[in-house]
Amino acid sequence: MEAINKRKIKYVAFDADDTLWAHESMFQSAHQTYESNLAHYVSEEELSKRLYEFEMKNLTHFGYGVKGFVLSMIETAIEITQGEISATEIQQIINLGKWMLDHPIDVLPRVEETLIDLKEDFTLLIITKGDLFDQESKIARSGLADHFEWIEIVSEKKEESYHKILTAHSILPDEIVMIGNSLKSDIIPMSKLGCTAIHIPFHVTWAHEEVSSEHLNGINYHHLSEISLVPDFIRQLR
Amino acid sequence: MEAINKRKIKYVAFDADDTLWAHESMFQSAHQTYESNLAHYVSEEELSKRLYEFEMKNLTHFGYGVKGFVLSMIETAIEITQGEISATEIQQIINLGKWMLDHPIDVLPRVEETLIDLKEDFTLLIITKGDLFDQESKIARSGLADHFEWIEIVSEKKEESYHKILTAHSILPDEIVMIGNSLKSDIIPMSKLGCTAIHIPFHVTWAHEEVSSEHLNGINYHHLSEISLVPDFIRQLR
Repeated sequence: MEAINKRKIKYVAFDADDTLWAHESMFQSAHQTYESNLAHYVSEEELSKRLYEFEMKNLTHFGYGVKGFVLSMIETAIEITQGEISATEIQQIINLGKWMLDHPIDVLPRVEETLIDLKEDFTLLIITKGDLFDQESKIARSGLADHFEWIEIVSEKKEESYHKILTAHSILPDEIVMIGNSLKSDIIPMSKLGCTAIHIPFHVTWAHEEVSSEHLNGINYHHLSEISLVPDFIRQLR
Repeated sequence: MEAINKRKIKYVAFDADDTLWAHESMFQSAHQTYESNLAHYVSEEELSKRLYEFEMKNLTHFGYGVKGFVLSMIETAIEITQGEISATEIQQIINLGKWMLDHPIDVLPRVEETLIDLKEDFTLLIITKGDLFDQESKIARSGLADHFEWIEIVSEKKEESYHKILTAHSILPDEIVMIGNSLKSDIIPMSKLGCTAIHIPFHVTWAHEEVSSEHLNGINYHHLSEISLVPDFIRQLR
């Protein structure tokens, strides 16, 4: 009996952006608008490269999220146009940010039915990173909040931050499954802690979230092509 | 015996900005720099009034924190100069934001000795609102983090958000004291929940945090002139 109960999964934790709802696609569409608005100054390719450099440099000041992204878009535009960009064009960038912040939440197919199914047997959680205000607003607007027992919003998804969450809620590594689209933020750190991790890729990935194959050395995780496969998969693990 | 133990305080929760370290004074100094940089376009008074309007309007998009404040400063400047402001001047506003985000943390007098004293008998917590990334960075840079058992960063300090925190940690209202500089965010909601609340004013208050006296009707709280008085005060409550 003990052997059977040894692996007793009680909690299923979900990443939010690009796992429960589409997110990166909105960022990419904002990128396109930004690049086409500035196309008379600079090529898309050059602008995109320089923006990514500003984003990376500014992470230490701004952290993740739309507001920091908007500030990076403005700084990039000022630098790349050598100060030629007009105030009106800068206002367009801010408006693009507001469009992103107020963008309808596009819950991914079969997410809700999967949550309802899993809720029968497991306690469901969200563990997401990013801007507190923005993430809370998205969770509320998604209409999914009631399926989750609690929600953790962290500024970085590293082993240490997950460890803190598990400790705070007295969860043992073999009691929880983590599900997410990012190998770097969702899968690798939780797998290293000894938790079960299920990777469900989204069709686009932010360059910053990409990992080289060497980082996957010794990492155990499962890959499922879509979220509706999760309930059966987890039940056979128990 | 039961009567004596009925009021058994176990937790002491602190607000952070302007309670543990100076904060609003940095905002006000940023205001001054902003206003003097734009003095050739508009009077300080008019700029300040319009900025406050933009800040309030933008709270629903941006929430609290420096990044949203920077975006509001940029929008105000664009509108008030009718698009005349230059990209270089906008970059100055962004640099002002980075100055704020990287500003050294000015821990207030007698905070550390008070925390060390209280730690002997109580579990200490921080409950603060604002930008997750910025607040975490400030707590780390303050050097005070080790005195606190746990830290809660919320997007709004309302009765409901405090109630959630107490429930999540199984804390009864009469087991906790809340200490803060804002009647609106720290004192009124916690007092309404039946907790002991101690108001320690800071010498400047953001207009948004001011409350009219009618909101204090029926609100019970204590007023102490400074943080070093807290340990003796709480011990006599027990």
